[in-house]
Amino acid sequence: MSRLRIAEIFGPTIQGEGALIGEPTVFVRAGGCDYRCAWCDSMHAVDSRYRDTWAAMTSEAVWAKVRQLSGGRALTVSISGGNPAIQDFGPLIEMGRAAGYRFACETQGSVARDWFGALDMLVLSPKPPSSGQVTDWNAFADCLAAGRGAGRMVMKIVVFDEADYAWARQAAARHPDLPLYLQPGNPEVDPSVPVGAQQVADRLLWLVEKVTGDGWFAPRVLPQLHVMLWGNKRGV
Amino acid sequence: MSRLRIAEIFGPTIQGEGALIGEPTVFVRAGGCDYRCAWCDSMHAVDSRYRDTWAAMTSEAVWAKVRQLSGGRALTVSISGGNPAIQDFGPLIEMGRAAGYRFACETQGSVARDWFGALDMLVLSPKPPSSGQVTDWNAFADCLAAGRGAGRMVMKIVVFDEADYAWARQAAARHPDLPLYLQPGNPEVDPSVPVGAQQVADRLLWLVEKVTGDGWFAPRVLPQLHVMLWGNKRGV
Repeated sequence: MSRLRIAEIFGPTIQGEGALIGEPTVFVRAGGCDYRCAWCDSMHAVDSRYRDTWAAMTSEAVWAKVRQLSGGRALTVSISGGNPAIQDFGPLIEMGRAAGYRFACETQGSVARDWFGALDMLVLSPKPPSSGQVTDWNAFADCLAAGRGAGRMVMKIVVFDEADYAWARQAAARHPDLPLYLQPGNPEVDPSVPVGAQQVADRLLWLVEKVTGDGWFAPRVLPQLHVMLWGNKRGV
Repeated sequence: MSRLRIAEIFGPTIQGEGALIGEPTVFVRAGGCDYRCAWCDSMHAVDSRYRDTWAAMTSEAVWAKVRQLSGGRALTVSISGGNPAIQDFGPLIEMGRAAGYRFACETQGSVARDWFGALDMLVLSPKPPSSGQVTDWNAFADCLAAGRGAGRMVMKIVVFDEADYAWARQAAARHPDLPLYLQPGNPEVDPSVPVGAQQVADRLLWLVEKVTGDGWFAPRVLPQLHVMLWGNKRGV
């Protein structure tokens, strides 16, 4: 039986960012990623030097853990990473949805999977220049096509600086029909360094003033609430 | 020509709370209210002792101001108060929608208006016990009926303490099909007293732990971002 590489499963807590912000959620964080973003805040789920901390779990075992954490009450499950699209989460989604659970997945949009269409929410988060990664827009379009059956599809872009902001405007122009969420980047990647709520608020204010100053009313601008609540602490 | 009592018109800024959190918005704050909530954070739009600060404006004049603030670019207009439902915002909504603007309205649900059905978003926010007000659930049901044509209808409840939380659970049981947003109350009502982002985060954390601890996964739990960004300052 094939196994999933799982960095962590935790919750329920609230979704801290993006279209489902505030939603009670259990998180399934997949291990492994095809990207190496300069400011990655989940390197423990990305870099293969953490590989021995990842669990090799069947879809059934992941589903059992989700059910246990949620006390058997249906809620939203967010599949994140790393890039979860490099693995097969189709069977997990099928089992969970049969029990009334809802599934969201967050991925950069570099790898298309047929199970995107079974999601309630597909969040595609292409990475801006500050990441050091280059977006393959053809692969991104393939992801959109694969997600056509999903309940909702949105684009989320993290913005650290002016160059990222300009890039986000171009990405939005490329996909004007995709609801867009912008979030200020969290420059502190070390989980042992506390990030204050005020710092998050200050970064948000900068981005709000950019967007409203430019009269760009398409995106929703949201902070990372989990960073406000818990800093970079893991498992919350 | 009939006039609207308007306490302030400001923006664009982001919507700080509830279902449209993060959305670039121009706010039209109506003057006058049938409630006197103990912790009201907008008393300047409620108490008739501030009446001489309210402008008597035609719907056309309000619409001209919204258009000017938004630079003529369509965005979301939030009609708040006070209780905007004690006035007739139908003509404003009609003019704005004809130009592609979207309209949200936030009201406690004590007075039903036919123009609720023309909204893109109707936010009904019944007030919990800490407010000192008593909800008339028949009037609330009339508001739901009036809003049937609206794009979306949601319920938002502010929670200050355990009694409010218990009341929110009862309200949710009464209207299980209405998407629910909970937000921690802001105990500081004086606009001259700064409220720190960390205080808002602490209140949010308390409410998140209540909800997830109880395995209550129906509501989304969100802070007031504008309080994090600007404290109680007006006009932002």
